[in-house]
Amino acid sequence: VSGGGKRISSRLGSSTADSITVCGLDLVGDIIGKVSLGDMAFLELRGRLPSPEESAVFNAIAVTLVEHGLTPSAVATRLTLYGAPESLQGAVAAGILGMGNRFGGSIEAAARTLQEAPAGEDPASLARVIVESHRSAHQTIAGIGHPIHRAADPRSARLFAVAANNGFSGRFVQLMQLISEEATRAYGKSLPVNATGAIAAVASELGISWRATRGIAVMARAIGLVAHVQEEMEAPLGGEILSRIED
Amino acid sequence: VSGGGKRISSRLGSSTADSITVCGLDLVGDIIGKVSLGDMAFLELRGRLPSPEESAVFNAIAVTLVEHGLTPSAVATRLTLYGAPESLQGAVAAGILGMGNRFGGSIEAAARTLQEAPAGEDPASLARVIVESHRSAHQTIAGIGHPIHRAADPRSARLFAVAANNGFSGRFVQLMQLISEEATRAYGKSLPVNATGAIAAVASELGISWRATRGIAVMARAIGLVAHVQEEMEAPLGGEILSRIED
Amino acid sequence: VSGGGKRISSRLGSSTADSITVCGLDLVGDIIGKVSLGDMAFLELRGRLPSPEESAVFNAIAVTLVEHGLTPSAVATRLTLYGAPESLQGAVAAGILGMGNRFGGSIEAAARTLQEAPAGEDPASLARVIVESHRSAHQTIAGIGHPIHRAADPRSARLFAVAANNGFSGRFVQLMQLISEEATRAYGKSLPVNATGAIAAVASELGISWRATRGIAVMARAIGLVAHVQEEMEAPLGGEILSRIED
Amino acid sequence: VSGGGKRISSRLGSSTADSITVCGLDLVGDIIGKVSLGDMAFLELRGRLPSPEESAVFNAIAVTLVEHGLTPSAVATRLTLYGAPESLQGAVAAGILGMGNRFGGSIEAAARTLQEAPAGEDPASLARVIVESHRSAHQTIAGIGHPIHRAADPRSARLFAVAANNGFSGRFVQLMQLISEEATRAYGKSLPVNATGAIAAVASELGISWRATRGIAVMARAIGLVAHVQEEMEAPLGGEILSRIED
Repeated sequence: VSGGGKRISSRLGSSTADSITVCGLDLVGDIIGKVSLGDMAFLELRGRLPSPEESAVFNAIAVTLVEHGLTPSAVATRLTLYGAPESLQGAVAAGILGMGNRFGGSIEAAARTLQEAPAGEDPASLARVIVESHRSAHQTIAGIGHPIHRAADPRSARLFAVAANNGFSGRFVQLMQLISEEATRAYGKSLPVNATGAIAAVASELGISWRATRGIAVMARAIGLVAHVQEEMEAPLGGEILSRIED
Repeated sequence: VSGGGKRISSRLGSSTADSITVCGLDLVGDIIGKVSLGDMAFLELRGRLPSPEESAVFNAIAVTLVEHGLTPSAVATRLTLYGAPESLQGAVAAGILGMGNRFGGSIEAAARTLQEAPAGEDPASLARVIVESHRSAHQTIAGIGHPIHRAADPRSARLFAVAANNGFSGRFVQLMQLISEEATRAYGKSLPVNATGAIAAVASELGISWRATRGIAVMARAIGLVAHVQEEMEAPLGGEILSRIED
Repeated sequence: VSGGGKRISSRLGSSTADSITVCGLDLVGDIIGKVSLGDMAFLELRGRLPSPEESAVFNAIAVTLVEHGLTPSAVATRLTLYGAPESLQGAVAAGILGMGNRFGGSIEAAARTLQEAPAGEDPASLARVIVESHRSAHQTIAGIGHPIHRAADPRSARLFAVAANNGFSGRFVQLMQLISEEATRAYGKSLPVNATGAIAAVASELGISWRATRGIAVMARAIGLVAHVQEEMEAPLGGEILSRIED
Repeated sequence: VSGGGKRISSRLGSSTADSITVCGLDLVGDIIGKVSLGDMAFLELRGRLPSPEESAVFNAIAVTLVEHGLTPSAVATRLTLYGAPESLQGAVAAGILGMGNRFGGSIEAAARTLQEAPAGEDPASLARVIVESHRSAHQTIAGIGHPIHRAADPRSARLFAVAANNGFSGRFVQLMQLISEEATRAYGKSLPVNATGAIAAVASELGISWRATRGIAVMARAIGLVAHVQEEMEAPLGGEILSRIED
């Protein structure tokens, strides 16, 4: 053992010649064949398995984020595969690199706003303070509004319903909705809670730190990007995409 | 539409102002709150939802691949976060880039061997031919044996049991086991089916192309790497890892 | 042109069946055999070839950033190659992902401070305002001081000398040095201009936007990381690095 | 030193509190202000500084690879920046991931063919054997021919002229040209040495291992991709590119 340094170990996993332990559970005896992929993700993030209600809500968030068609990151994945067909992992990594401030970042920003709001205070007052502080600083409020003008994002209503049905419609969901109402009044235009705002609120109800919320988008989209690689291998779009750009 | 080119569209997903469609299903009405993350991954890869049996087997494969502690790719993720703490997605992408030929590639190679074996022939003869052709070319047979000498990998037995319990112990599982037996005889040492071999065989039973099998490792590990980023943010190991290298 | 959209073109480069144009120059006639790699980088960033003096100063900055031994990003590159030996580009990309806020970001922050300081004002007053505003906000001042206590970073003196010898010791270099002096006084400890501060000041003299300064680190380090891949292929350190972590 | 393990060190670089050594040279005293970026890259790859002739030839190769306009990898970089504007390094890494088998790989394959040809044998016979073995295996010969039918790639002639003028027109250049002539005869169509073939031949003359040739493309293109990020920050094309895809 080197120079008295501290032990390097992770609570996430470790293995010996005979067993693999993940978050305190035995991979073979406790997990394989018993735990679903979504619940495994919850286990990794929270350090314990979810209750059935937590599982329903967490999986609902995660599946929302898997697939959105030919997004910039899916196109980056396909163009990367075009140049490096030997590396599935490289093409997926290229797509993940686009899950930054514009997409994953808005979930993170909304979750941070909610989680940093002091507990125990009147939610309507908090919403007013949040909207006013963003407005006076000319900052966008993450989690509300949508580039395509529409009354409401159907994903938000669905996610809030799943959360409510499972007992996770607490103060973060309430605060997110009050922020939307307050902003709609303050800006004089419809600013409904969008999908990222709903995900941020519901993830906060599940006790997931705002710092990790972008990670839910990253893990979910990794699944979608693998499927884009598979489709691109079978029926490539890369050449046609490039010909459009060179027009 | 530009220059008479073919329509650029993906069967995976598309959206309009009112709805998001994923693999032919309505995201809001058919998926959120109804489909788990693992089943969503199956949907993305196979184009349809799994049966309960397929779901059990697919999720068993996927959770096996999520977490293995401080692997090279987890360490790469943590060292990348050390230099770029602002980019969760960059740290996860760095770790995914290590899911190449050494790890994910062995699943791919084993699945390819199984899927390219002509259907309808005697499995024992096929196993003999496969072992002999690798042996005479001095090539490693993917999916059998393990660097740490042990009688058998407990993950393999568990995965084969889950597959059998759900009716997915077909010709690919049989062939993988016969290859192990034949190789053990030919090389005169214990060469049991390892975890990558079991995953390759069971994924083949589920109708997943060998070209996509590496992708299951990539999507599963993305989940684990997000958790490593979260842990590194809360209790960093990067500095201690670096001090060991500089010893 | 499709659908009335604007023309998609880059001033950086374009090609026809007969010629390749880069920043307005003919690649074959004007560049190959006539322009060095460092001057090509200047051409790409500034849109014109450098004068001999600009070339001397730009190349001095760039070579400073190529190689620093077994840094976190070099280790990430080597561990990525360990898992994916088939992908040189993936290993280099993994290392580049670590060129974030901790390293490249400090050049960027220092250059931004210098470039956003109003021209025409008294440099000593500017330095005082900059130090005071960071101090009262408990923010680190980028570009000065060094974790290993030393009187001065020899790279800084050398870079400032090269700049002065070529007529690029103007107001940004002066301001950087005054910030160091002012901070040394204000904090009561030696806070010399470090290598990132010198690079930031000299790059600013060359008219490179602070937004692109991190890019000089990225392009230079890409060269070093390719060499780490080559060395790792020939004399691997990955296994020994991993064994230290598992100690 | 931990546990009796071997010393972890790289010949590329190391540092103490007082000095940074790169490939045996003192960074401050021997390199900054004296060595250009291209010569630094040669130093990193070959372990010594180039002669003036080697420098001329190496820089000629490298600058050829920096910029080709809106290639798939440049588009991937721009789309990644669109989603993650906070991470210059992530956008560059995404573009580098596309420098795989289709582009960098053809340089590698051509250089390997040349370097694995036995020295001392008659070059014309070697060329015949190489063309015949590829032809009978229905394999493409790397380094010759071009998708856009043209008599010759002007970059090849220029690179060969620079090499000849500097005394680097040896057996690898001769063999590459003989392969082109032999293939043109065997296939009955013009198959001139293309840019990747010329680069492969000239890099081989410089003593660069075929395993590292893809790395020259990666390091050169990293420079170009930084410039694409800078241009995209100032005059974004990402939105227009996406609108073309969604047509």
